[in-house]
Amino acid sequence: MKQSKLFPKTSKTVSREEISTNAQFLVKGGFINKLMAGVYTYMPLGLRVLKKIENVIREEINAIDGQEIFMPALHPHENYVTTGRENIDVLFHPESVSGKKYVLGQSHEEVIVPLVKQYISSYKDLPLYLYQIQTEFRNELRAKSGILRGREFMMKDLYSFHRDDKDFDEYYEKAKLAYMSIFRRVGIGNSTYLTFASGGTFSKYSHVFQTITHSGEDTIYLCRKCRIAVNKDIVNEQKSCPECQSTDLEPEKSIEVGNIFPLKTKFSNAFHLSYTDENGNSREVVMGCYGIGLGRVLGTVVEVNNDDNGIIWPDEIAPFDVHLISIDADKNGNDIYSTLQKNGVDVLYDDRKESAGSKLKDADLIGIPIRLVVSKKTGDKVEMKKRKDSKATICSLNEVLDTISKQNV
Amino acid sequence: MKQSKLFPKTSKTVSREEISTNAQFLVKGGFINKLMAGVYTYMPLGLRVLKKIENVIREEINAIDGQEIFMPALHPHENYVTTGRENIDVLFHPESVSGKKYVLGQSHEEVIVPLVKQYISSYKDLPLYLYQIQTEFRNELRAKSGILRGREFMMKDLYSFHRDDKDFDEYYEKAKLAYMSIFRRVGIGNSTYLTFASGGTFSKYSHVFQTITHSGEDTIYLCRKCRIAVNKDIVNEQKSCPECQSTDLEPEKSIEVGNIFPLKTKFSNAFHLSYTDENGNSREVVMGCYGIGLGRVLGTVVEVNNDDNGIIWPDEIAPFDVHLISIDADKNGNDIYSTLQKNGVDVLYDDRKESAGSKLKDADLIGIPIRLVVSKKTGDKVEMKKRKDSKATICSLNEVLDTISKQNV
Repeated sequence: MKQSKLFPKTSKTVSREEISTNAQFLVKGGFINKLMAGVYTYMPLGLRVLKKIENVIREEINAIDGQEIFMPALHPHENYVTTGRENIDVLFHPESVSGKKYVLGQSHEEVIVPLVKQYISSYKDLPLYLYQIQTEFRNELRAKSGILRGREFMMKDLYSFHRDDKDFDEYYEKAKLAYMSIFRRVGIGNSTYLTFASGGTFSKYSHVFQTITHSGEDTIYLCRKCRIAVNKDIVNEQKSCPECQSTDLEPEKSIEVGNIFPLKTKFSNAFHLSYTDENGNSREVVMGCYGIGLGRVLGTVVEVNNDDNGIIWPDEIAPFDVHLISIDADKNGNDIYSTLQKNGVDVLYDDRKESAGSKLKDADLIGIPIRLVVSKKTGDKVEMKKRKDSKATICSLNEVLDTISKQNV
Repeated sequence: MKQSKLFPKTSKTVSREEISTNAQFLVKGGFINKLMAGVYTYMPLGLRVLKKIENVIREEINAIDGQEIFMPALHPHENYVTTGRENIDVLFHPESVSGKKYVLGQSHEEVIVPLVKQYISSYKDLPLYLYQIQTEFRNELRAKSGILRGREFMMKDLYSFHRDDKDFDEYYEKAKLAYMSIFRRVGIGNSTYLTFASGGTFSKYSHVFQTITHSGEDTIYLCRKCRIAVNKDIVNEQKSCPECQSTDLEPEKSIEVGNIFPLKTKFSNAFHLSYTDENGNSREVVMGCYGIGLGRVLGTVVEVNNDDNGIIWPDEIAPFDVHLISIDADKNGNDIYSTLQKNGVDVLYDDRKESAGSKLKDADLIGIPIRLVVSKKTGDKVEMKKRKDSKATICSLNEVLDTISKQNV
């Protein structure tokens, strides 16, 4: 795409309310735009990244047999009366013209359990894994940290349905691995830890995935040896790593990027979701739920991958593969742009009439993994620099294509 | 995908409330599930079709230079006070915990105009074409006709921004052509007519796209010669075709599947969206808007493409390319399934332990364009039947692959 056509231009300033690193870079770079506190528009660059994160998640959840559906945002209020959650304080409650009460979904247990109940009767119908990628709403008293804690946000929700605890436990382990693959692919694998939290009424532990970053709102306690962490509650209770029992736990600031949770029979019980087993006995379905906030992952990626000049996008979710910049060399620039496109490379081409300094500054801010500069100096070659490196090299277009194809493996 | 794993199974019955053809087939076939009046879940098969419609629309709107963004569903109430639309009766009005008033978007003028205003200052910033594919909400007194008139629905909204009427008019003509391409590709091109409606305050005409079907709520008046139509208001006013002036206009029942509308300066004026022209004068931006309801298109496709036994999906938006059915021939079935998959064919493989009759009935209901049957009788060949044809032929797998590749051109 030609940058002269890209909406919007980058901004030099950002509102003082945006104190988080992710919001500052994302707003300045033209990835997002704030409509009001906790509610953002994804601009073309931001939506490209969001869609790539969405596709990584979709591939990994499909690989553990998830079937994608798309549930509504408007829920019937009476379903929340059934589960006793009609008064939880994060719900929005719109009403119809005739006075019917709705809830805007902040999760989807109250929709998916009655849905599944219509189709499940026998042990042969289980297990079942359904997920969706959908906008959700939380009536937060205080929205903050850019897109990390919003009133409206995009979530991947996976729900699993099982005949018994054993079957659930096996799938729960698979989901853990799928989650770590997702975080690795979006570029926060090294900073993200499976973190043990309290399991509530039903099990000893539940688990969240926490990414270490200075700006994190949470504190976790790392066991470096086991590459896991525990949250504050657990460290207060047992003061040791749940796996190796070491008491050498190191506190770090972190952001929660995903959670997996044993629901067991809480919602099956509320909606009488049961099945008939091999012996003709009726049994309650055992459930798990598994969430990832897409905007939160996007914001966390930026918190983890940046320098003073801007974002450093991980290869797999970058808005473009290559940022091609022409400095007074439009003929060469146009030729290289069309050659790259013919080779299937996704290029942002800075064809604008701007100074070299301002173009290079924008490239650092936007953070595309590979920067190519063509100028009168470069002749039929280009200057290639990776965003994460400081050194540039002069090379031929074939060498560039070679680098890109290795990167996309 | 193996049909034994597909959620959900087809249903023999459907609620008596679902009187429309589209809802009956879509619910029975397991494409959608009703949560409450006007609010549906898209199940795996339905979501596949919806995503394919989404991709057709995205390709055609990108081709006329649309840039995709993603705006929020929660809007600030004060923006509707600015445009004087705060009391229109189709709006939902959720409130925050602290009493702040929001609107759930039923369209996005109140968000996109203030957004664009932050970035546009000069004639050099125009024209600009922004669109989104997003869930919208209408507080309908009576939701009806399955997914045709919902309280929650997915829309493609395109907004265009221009320096003057001439530039707008040129783009408006391009948008008309893009819309006809969309309707042709999703399989309702032959039944869909550009229909002249009143232009309101700003122009002589606006335009809607109407698809002819017995169950339509609207009536349009066709000029067969010009392949256009007019709505009731226009026929009452001028009694003739706006293009050839013929009075030979034929009434037909129809469904509105899209609309394009000159907004001119109505919203630019409300939000003071202006730009500086070449002579340094400040001028108001001229706008157009262009909508398509994705669920409505999906429902209309079903209304137009069906027979007594079920849906007949057009090739480009079918949930799968091929429905492979094994009748007591699992070994052959498995082999053919894996060969088709290796050749990049998207197959639903009916590997269930069901009777032949029930499998064939389900295949007709679900409506995938090509049905292949393998049985003891077919040997190393398969029986191929197109859903829209009545005749089946015995052929080799190579002939099948040949047919599919021709279909996907």
